[in-house]
Amino acid sequence: MDFKKTEEQELLLESFRELLARECTEEYLKECDEKHQNPTKLWQAFSDNGFSSLGIPEEYGGTPVDNVTLMMLVEEYGKAGGPWGWPYFIMVDDILTFGSEEQKKISLEYFQKGRLAFTLLITEPGAGSDNNSLTTTATRKNGKVYINGHKTFISGAVEADYFLVMTRDLSNPVPAQAMSMWWVPKNAKGITIEPVRKIGWHALSNSEIYLDNVEVEEKDLIGVEGKGFIQLLKNFEMERLTLAAIVLGYAEAAFEDAIHYANQRMQFGKKIGEFQLIQEKLTYMALKIENMRNMVYKGAWAKDNGLPVIIPSAMAKLYCAQSAFEVVDDAMQVLGGIGYTEDHRVSRLWRDTRVYRLAGGTDQIMIHIAGRALLKQYK
Amino acid sequence: MDFKKTEEQELLLESFRELLARECTEEYLKECDEKHQNPTKLWQAFSDNGFSSLGIPEEYGGTPVDNVTLMMLVEEYGKAGGPWGWPYFIMVDDILTFGSEEQKKISLEYFQKGRLAFTLLITEPGAGSDNNSLTTTATRKNGKVYINGHKTFISGAVEADYFLVMTRDLSNPVPAQAMSMWWVPKNAKGITIEPVRKIGWHALSNSEIYLDNVEVEEKDLIGVEGKGFIQLLKNFEMERLTLAAIVLGYAEAAFEDAIHYANQRMQFGKKIGEFQLIQEKLTYMALKIENMRNMVYKGAWAKDNGLPVIIPSAMAKLYCAQSAFEVVDDAMQVLGGIGYTEDHRVSRLWRDTRVYRLAGGTDQIMIHIAGRALLKQYK
Amino acid sequence: MDFKKTEEQELLLESFRELLARECTEEYLKECDEKHQNPTKLWQAFSDNGFSSLGIPEEYGGTPVDNVTLMMLVEEYGKAGGPWGWPYFIMVDDILTFGSEEQKKISLEYFQKGRLAFTLLITEPGAGSDNNSLTTTATRKNGKVYINGHKTFISGAVEADYFLVMTRDLSNPVPAQAMSMWWVPKNAKGITIEPVRKIGWHALSNSEIYLDNVEVEEKDLIGVEGKGFIQLLKNFEMERLTLAAIVLGYAEAAFEDAIHYANQRMQFGKKIGEFQLIQEKLTYMALKIENMRNMVYKGAWAKDNGLPVIIPSAMAKLYCAQSAFEVVDDAMQVLGGIGYTEDHRVSRLWRDTRVYRLAGGTDQIMIHIAGRALLKQYK
Amino acid sequence: MDFKKTEEQELLLESFRELLARECTEEYLKECDEKHQNPTKLWQAFSDNGFSSLGIPEEYGGTPVDNVTLMMLVEEYGKAGGPWGWPYFIMVDDILTFGSEEQKKISLEYFQKGRLAFTLLITEPGAGSDNNSLTTTATRKNGKVYINGHKTFISGAVEADYFLVMTRDLSNPVPAQAMSMWWVPKNAKGITIEPVRKIGWHALSNSEIYLDNVEVEEKDLIGVEGKGFIQLLKNFEMERLTLAAIVLGYAEAAFEDAIHYANQRMQFGKKIGEFQLIQEKLTYMALKIENMRNMVYKGAWAKDNGLPVIIPSAMAKLYCAQSAFEVVDDAMQVLGGIGYTEDHRVSRLWRDTRVYRLAGGTDQIMIHIAGRALLKQYK
Repeated sequence: MDFKKTEEQELLLESFRELLARECTEEYLKECDEKHQNPTKLWQAFSDNGFSSLGIPEEYGGTPVDNVTLMMLVEEYGKAGGPWGWPYFIMVDDILTFGSEEQKKISLEYFQKGRLAFTLLITEPGAGSDNNSLTTTATRKNGKVYINGHKTFISGAVEADYFLVMTRDLSNPVPAQAMSMWWVPKNAKGITIEPVRKIGWHALSNSEIYLDNVEVEEKDLIGVEGKGFIQLLKNFEMERLTLAAIVLGYAEAAFEDAIHYANQRMQFGKKIGEFQLIQEKLTYMALKIENMRNMVYKGAWAKDNGLPVIIPSAMAKLYCAQSAFEVVDDAMQVLGGIGYTEDHRVSRLWRDTRVYRLAGGTDQIMIHIAGRALLKQYK
Repeated sequence: MDFKKTEEQELLLESFRELLARECTEEYLKECDEKHQNPTKLWQAFSDNGFSSLGIPEEYGGTPVDNVTLMMLVEEYGKAGGPWGWPYFIMVDDILTFGSEEQKKISLEYFQKGRLAFTLLITEPGAGSDNNSLTTTATRKNGKVYINGHKTFISGAVEADYFLVMTRDLSNPVPAQAMSMWWVPKNAKGITIEPVRKIGWHALSNSEIYLDNVEVEEKDLIGVEGKGFIQLLKNFEMERLTLAAIVLGYAEAAFEDAIHYANQRMQFGKKIGEFQLIQEKLTYMALKIENMRNMVYKGAWAKDNGLPVIIPSAMAKLYCAQSAFEVVDDAMQVLGGIGYTEDHRVSRLWRDTRVYRLAGGTDQIMIHIAGRALLKQYK
Repeated sequence: MDFKKTEEQELLLESFRELLARECTEEYLKECDEKHQNPTKLWQAFSDNGFSSLGIPEEYGGTPVDNVTLMMLVEEYGKAGGPWGWPYFIMVDDILTFGSEEQKKISLEYFQKGRLAFTLLITEPGAGSDNNSLTTTATRKNGKVYINGHKTFISGAVEADYFLVMTRDLSNPVPAQAMSMWWVPKNAKGITIEPVRKIGWHALSNSEIYLDNVEVEEKDLIGVEGKGFIQLLKNFEMERLTLAAIVLGYAEAAFEDAIHYANQRMQFGKKIGEFQLIQEKLTYMALKIENMRNMVYKGAWAKDNGLPVIIPSAMAKLYCAQSAFEVVDDAMQVLGGIGYTEDHRVSRLWRDTRVYRLAGGTDQIMIHIAGRALLKQYK
Repeated sequence: MDFKKTEEQELLLESFRELLARECTEEYLKECDEKHQNPTKLWQAFSDNGFSSLGIPEEYGGTPVDNVTLMMLVEEYGKAGGPWGWPYFIMVDDILTFGSEEQKKISLEYFQKGRLAFTLLITEPGAGSDNNSLTTTATRKNGKVYINGHKTFISGAVEADYFLVMTRDLSNPVPAQAMSMWWVPKNAKGITIEPVRKIGWHALSNSEIYLDNVEVEEKDLIGVEGKGFIQLLKNFEMERLTLAAIVLGYAEAAFEDAIHYANQRMQFGKKIGEFQLIQEKLTYMALKIENMRNMVYKGAWAKDNGLPVIIPSAMAKLYCAQSAFEVVDDAMQVLGGIGYTEDHRVSRLWRDTRVYRLAGGTDQIMIHIAGRALLKQYK
């Protein structure tokens, strides 16, 4: 066993850290949060410095890199407070595996420029955790395909220019064989986008999307008809790990803020770090961060080595989303009133981290996935 | 023992509930939250309907009522989602006990009109949990008194017209004998007020306040010189119970939202309330609410019966602030993404409830108070 | 509302406490634990002093008393460390409601003498939480009834002289209409009893019981044929409250041991009670005890007032069994190594308290009961 | 990074597992528990098969092996339910570093034969967590040294033949310079040993030891006079990791019992593993085990690589002792009543695992160590 970063990883992280220190400033992040806008300048900088190509295969002009390293980068990005929307490698996979040449070309161009190419339109008002209940349809007529439906909580619809829309063939009783994914330009006729107003996660838009007879072509089908959902499954595992990695970063950021504060803040004639109740909080915060980090790295390592990651990725998502929020919440408690103000980034991290127990599969869904897979494993 | 509300209590609560249903609408609360403004219309309605006089002694034109009943009203107000700032009875006590006739007159007039008369200026950047470290001073010169200092996190400074400013005689080595409280009009020369920007609790202002040679008179001293803090202590106990009562109400509101949702929302072909993971959440939510309610009522009953409440009030504040947040957080989880949007009140309750683990004495201070008092009791 | 004990309750508890101080000594309890035997001497003392008649209707020579008072007595008994098996009033109900005159007579004579008359034989190896899966049968032949089956975890089979055996009519597809209860003398032919060896709860036997063609008469049927289980349901609610009350007592005992120790034990030059980590433990212990006590009293009060107690009793059982164990476990931690030795009663309370999360319905079953009842209530 | 076991490790573990399957049977462990005796036969088998030499330097006839591998062996031993007392490598270090040639020779002979050579006598009734309060003294008279004192909770005093007694020079005001360690044969005159009766951990004795003018020689001093405690510190870190490793094994054992049971046990017409409440328990159990394992391996790896392990070892001890008990406790809950009986090993693991939150430094001491070290690191 070896828990050490390679020299290459250290160097890569160091240059990434330098870039983040320059571009991912608290001032800029706060501005993005307040204006509810994407950190486009930051992602542009990623592009300019080659970080947008990481994780993209060489044949597509990218720089392949193992998943462990990718997770380290995401963690670092989270530690700098970077908002969700960036790690393109977890998105690009879908389109590289199943997309047409044109779809690939468009996607890669966007991503390498530091822009969101597309976003997934899966969730619907009646299909949150339960994807099998989708009601959006794709109907053929006169050689065209017409999409009708209502999607909700869609992340990045404002920022991206294309939608990958999941539809369901309602006549097929087996949901796993009834899902299809379509490539739809955002500006297609019949699309209405309305904002979902959240209490955090402001640097990425979330939208309500109505599709009213949106016309696409047969060639816009992504992958195999009826297999739209199955095609995504592999990618979901990496998505879970990546979500775990970013909140790990948030927890680290909050922890460092809290421990530095505990080392300075005087109350009752001593540094608050000298109080056992604060030491206890800090110890458990550090402990959870250690656990999260091990889970994320090990999950990515398993993926890199062709091992199954359904259980590790679901457990990492579950544990990290819960524990990261606990750590950030503890940081707020250590900071006292200051942590509840907008003057301190911990308050933003607190609002932002909470959504990870809902997005990308709720805690309950992670238990559902991991619990059943464990039972099967021991059968 | 008797756990039943009296008929009078039931009637009073019923009419209060009706008033709340009319005036404390979700629409109005949301508006106050968004505009960061006090629910003045609501408090005016309280005044118009006699609820502002409750808990104020008869001799001052009020309607005396026992603490148990007062707590029930606060709980009800919280259950309607009402923001902090209202229960005047916990404020008025300070001034009725120690104030001059003029101070009393002003305060009561304001309160009975449904307006904040004054607010306490205690907390300072270097004196959060540790009041003994205050550095604001009151200096005599030429028959006048000059106050200098910097206060922070002051609640209601924008809404109130008078400040009760706590100063410390830095030459006195015994802090308990060095604190004095002064009655200062907000518009006095030398006062600068700057907003503290929070992530919630928007219906009540919090401010940074600078006092630069603010001139007052000897007659503006409240109570006894040097006893400014001790005078407040009794009131702190009722304040803790009242804070506990309001978050109990928030928890009830969130619980009801969650359980109604669980009874309707379909996923995987059944109501989500049929899933054990949801039943578990709901059971523990109900259980915590039951515990909170018992603690709040019993603490108030103890106060009404002249029993010591230092331990019950600290334990109630600690348990209720923590548990209410847990309940609201669970409600968000049951609601899924919707609970994270501004379209649902649970997201506001979630932001608002969190502050109660910091305001009115942090969790850590409650443990400090209750823990030591318990040890003393068993000595 | 009134949280005060009546004068009668205070007097009754005082005399009960005196009796316990004399008869329920730690020395005796330890002996019972080590020898795996019932505290017969103690229960005899209860009988001699009239405490065995409490809760038994006047017409049967008992002293009726409200449920709140009974719960106070059970709590007090638990606080003295008394082992399960005693509170006869929760058992006698079944037989007084449904038993024949002879069955009543026998039962009351036993109970009033401070002895277990009978015990319930419900649980089977394949029917733990799921009573509907019972396989023990009662078959008629030649005017007699023959019982066959295998019961397990039966409490008190060694101590009692009669068994109330639950059988199921396997031909009836509706379990609720298929259960019958039979009065069987322990020494009947065909009964084999084998001990279940536990890690605690030693003062009450648990047994594996084999019934091999045990012959009884028609008159030995208790209550109505096919309604054996329904007849018990009401009593289960009081049983849950009573289980909650006894573990509340255990928690109180452990808490007092811990806080006294914290007030004396010196480490690092001061009393360990001066350490925040200990104060924190003690505060939460006290807090949980307060919650448990409120739940138990309020549940009993509801029962006394004819209110439904299905939710309160399930929640009390769930919360008290979990919290009492946490409190006792914390006491062990405060006591350090001493708490893990047989020299200290906390180690026995620790072993004994744990079983209450399994016996009388597991935590999971309580969630099942309370969760569904809550959802129904809010429908 | 690499999370894979080497081929050598796999082979070594495989042969260890085979040995354990043969010698560390549940039947034998149960017998040791019931008879309160050491598994001497098992440890003899370790010796016969070369496992007793692992971790002992080559120059002393041992087989050096890295700490990661040692921890894997301890984990495996714990997973087989093996009782504490065995991993000799964590003991031998003290004597190899500071012992005389004779002391080394004796110790190694014992250990390689699968027997405890010595045990540490540190803890005293007044010095539990606070070693600086020791009162056992070593007094010189007529060229001899006389030891007087009272030690308690001493593990393995019955099994070992030598004691390493920690004494304190009461005249030295600096405790860190006042501690000395002495090599004392157990059968020396003046030594009285009395059993400490515990509720678990029965396969290893714990004793109360009285030293009354026990005569030793100057040559029996181990290491440097006054440095007795400092000499041990390094070893404490490895001890903490080792304690973490064994309880990790216990948790794994309990988890496997629980998940196999959940896959078989039918209730309410289905396998209990199909219930969400059980899936939830199993998921969190697996998650904690994963965290424990990562912590233990990574801590050992850090040690192997010369990195500081004060924080990792304290955090591992804290987290593993708490989490392992939670996992075992959950296993008991999944198993239901059976888990509370002596027929199932989970009941023994439950009693045994609890002591690890007290032994080798309590949870509170681990927080004290890790908390302060973390604060220092971020200063």
